[in-house]
Amino acid sequence: MAKFMDVHEGMVGITPEALKAAHAGDLALQGEEGVSFDHAWADPVSGKVFCISTGPSAEAIQRVHTRNGIPPTEIHEITMEV
Amino acid sequence: MAKFMDVHEGMVGITPEALKAAHAGDLALQGEEGVSFDHAWADPVSGKVFCISTGPSAEAIQRVHTRNGIPPTEIHEITMEV
Repeated sequence: MAKFMDVHEGMVGITPEALKAAHAGDLALQGEEGVSFDHAWADPVSGKVFCISTGPSAEAIQRVHTRNGIPPTEIHEITMEV
Repeated sequence: MAKFMDVHEGMVGITPEALKAAHAGDLALQGEEGVSFDHAWADPVSGKVFCISTGPSAEAIQRVHTRNGIPPTEIHEITMEV
């Protein structure tokens, strides 16, 4: 398993309720791909959302988010942190 | 106090030791600006580093990182998370 940070753009004006609903959609699908979406942070002014997850591959992250209607702009494999 | 996610680009090939040293540099300076750098995640392949922090303003985050020699490319104020 690996860790990933993915980034969504264009989510200007996202509300806390919409973020919660988007996250719930990911959680409902993630098991099929062996993914765990652990946390998400949003800036509704710039429209960027950052998600940290663990999973078998970036492609698995991409598939869950895309099936949930929120394909990420970038996915980065995190191999170090402090 | 607010929460921020800042992003650094161009750090391709960063090592765990370099990430630790950069973070230590931020920690050494952050008190002067009332900032707390809480966690950082790095992808040495894409060269992106993501830092989550709390502080009084984006400008304070910018000043600490810049004095430490690692000005961020973007700073996003995080007003919601799940």
